[in-house]
Amino acid sequence: MAELRYLILADGEFGPMSSKTANAVIRYQPDRVVAVLDRTQAGRTAREVLGFGGDIPVVGSIEEGLALGPTAVLVGIAPVGGHLPEEWRGWLARALEAGCDLVSGLHTFLADDPLLAARAKALGRRLVDVRRPPADLPVASGLARKVAAYVVLTVGTDCNVGKMTAQLELGRELRRRGHRARFVATGQTGIMLEGWGIAVDAVVADFIAGAAERITLEGARDADIVLVEGQGSINHPGYSGVTLGLLHRSCPDAMILCHQATREYLGDYGPQPWLRIPPLREYVRLYETAAGMVYPSRVIAVALNTYDLGEGEARRACEEAARETGLPVTDPVRFGPALLADAVLRGRAEYLRRRGAQVRSAS
Amino acid sequence: MAELRYLILADGEFGPMSSKTANAVIRYQPDRVVAVLDRTQAGRTAREVLGFGGDIPVVGSIEEGLALGPTAVLVGIAPVGGHLPEEWRGWLARALEAGCDLVSGLHTFLADDPLLAARAKALGRRLVDVRRPPADLPVASGLARKVAAYVVLTVGTDCNVGKMTAQLELGRELRRRGHRARFVATGQTGIMLEGWGIAVDAVVADFIAGAAERITLEGARDADIVLVEGQGSINHPGYSGVTLGLLHRSCPDAMILCHQATREYLGDYGPQPWLRIPPLREYVRLYETAAGMVYPSRVIAVALNTYDLGEGEARRACEEAARETGLPVTDPVRFGPALLADAVLRGRAEYLRRRGAQVRSAS
Repeated sequence: MAELRYLILADGEFGPMSSKTANAVIRYQPDRVVAVLDRTQAGRTAREVLGFGGDIPVVGSIEEGLALGPTAVLVGIAPVGGHLPEEWRGWLARALEAGCDLVSGLHTFLADDPLLAARAKALGRRLVDVRRPPADLPVASGLARKVAAYVVLTVGTDCNVGKMTAQLELGRELRRRGHRARFVATGQTGIMLEGWGIAVDAVVADFIAGAAERITLEGARDADIVLVEGQGSINHPGYSGVTLGLLHRSCPDAMILCHQATREYLGDYGPQPWLRIPPLREYVRLYETAAGMVYPSRVIAVALNTYDLGEGEARRACEEAARETGLPVTDPVRFGPALLADAVLRGRAEYLRRRGAQVRSAS
Repeated sequence: MAELRYLILADGEFGPMSSKTANAVIRYQPDRVVAVLDRTQAGRTAREVLGFGGDIPVVGSIEEGLALGPTAVLVGIAPVGGHLPEEWRGWLARALEAGCDLVSGLHTFLADDPLLAARAKALGRRLVDVRRPPADLPVASGLARKVAAYVVLTVGTDCNVGKMTAQLELGRELRRRGHRARFVATGQTGIMLEGWGIAVDAVVADFIAGAAERITLEGARDADIVLVEGQGSINHPGYSGVTLGLLHRSCPDAMILCHQATREYLGDYGPQPWLRIPPLREYVRLYETAAGMVYPSRVIAVALNTYDLGEGEARRACEEAARETGLPVTDPVRFGPALLADAVLRGRAEYLRRRGAQVRSAS
């Protein structure tokens, strides 16, 4: 996907907490984004809306966006249920006619839309449904527990708290320090950024585990540290199944707990919040217990998302979380991922010593 | 499905532990079964192979089976991965020509098989894929926690230990005692028996929760006690995601822990067993902790599957499990489900007292 230039569709949804896919692409690959389409924010820039993303313009119509020369239109929101808004179908058809490919992370596949599929075929354009799972997933084998690489999984207190972002920042830092660290994408945004991965929430439930295992093994082929993008939360009534399947089959050696500092109730769930987020130390216990049923793992650090706090409040939130959990805590976006990288490298060193001792005692 | 007479295909797999779907239909609806096709057991009866099922014959060819006048052929095994053995496609096509409908619980849908779909259409026969999920599942709402009915979920130490059977036996006993108890099927066999339900392991992972919620609400519409069929096990690396999703969204008031007394390792998983089954009291703790993240629930009884033990050993196994857990324990098939029904009715009485107290204190 090296030569892609995206026009991102995020109509009515472009904002710091609402357009997750769009925001991640803008944060990590701003050079690939020519514009964002959102009629409610037209005329502003990405930085004005998000606080980052520089001068990327927000446009108010598909024509304005297409005039800026994108090679592809990216469906940049993931609404509950995953369905394509009706109005967008017409815009996407116009984009195909203007020479664009279409890239989507929706549950409803663009390629299954008769109108879009027919237009794309007639015009020789590509429809990329990043959520479409591979057709040949294995049910079970348990091999991920045997990989030599040190596997780190991000786990969360809720959806949309920064599990992907923490791994992306961490991966960059580890590679900067000379380590072979590889990010493993498990959701549509991560796949758009990396060009590979499996959206584990889009596979049939029986195959969550096989998908988690396959991408962990794939990530470990040319890396010493594998950074698996976590999904959902172990106590999220809508997504806990995906969370536990991924935890049990990626067999992580370590976990990083991700939390948004100001969030009090589980979001993304029902018309009114009713499930209060338990204390962080409770999550540490829950995740270590859940992991330990299959493969022992421990939480080695906390990544705190403080996007909606001032600088001083953010520092205090990190200090408080560190006191509560006894773990290193940072906001990897605001304060950089150095603390997380340190924790991973300490964990890996101990892991290698243990493996070395096992090899010696076996010989 | 009232007028169905099944020829069950279980070729090479008919046996007490290998043909789960076939066995459940034979146990609960023997009058609907005209024969079982298994070339390796031809000439025997169901009772000789399974220990129950009376004189239902095992035949050695599709022609013999069709000669006995079935109205439908039921695919009675569920191989790992769910795919239809190649040889069976020819048999199923012959069955269509002989006037039969086809009923299948495989992940691979018969209706997606070009050969079978074309033959069925030309001949006016039905292809019933019980695992095909509804197209319009909701993602999230959390309503199952508000149903007035007392919801009981079976949870297991592994796959294939008796979670469906325990609920079927319990439902029969509760209805015999005059209670409006309803079984809610979550797997293909249960759906074949009941004629409704959703195979939760066949829905896309994001929708496990919505499926669990919908069938629980549906079951509660005309019942005071809802008996939800559990799936998998919370520590099964292949299926824990489905297990937790179902647990979190059916919002059970009580759980019954199901275990096969002689099993030491998690089965159905990889070429060699490697995960030892922890003690029952550990499962009680794990399930109550996991449930409590969303909706408080407790394990009220243990259903022990002792099919491969002698009578005395079976009694001792129940006594030992009762000592370990402090809970009522029985094998509902061997010793009857009375103890389970007693536990459910005690739990429900307490639940009603608590609700009554809440209503009084609110008024």
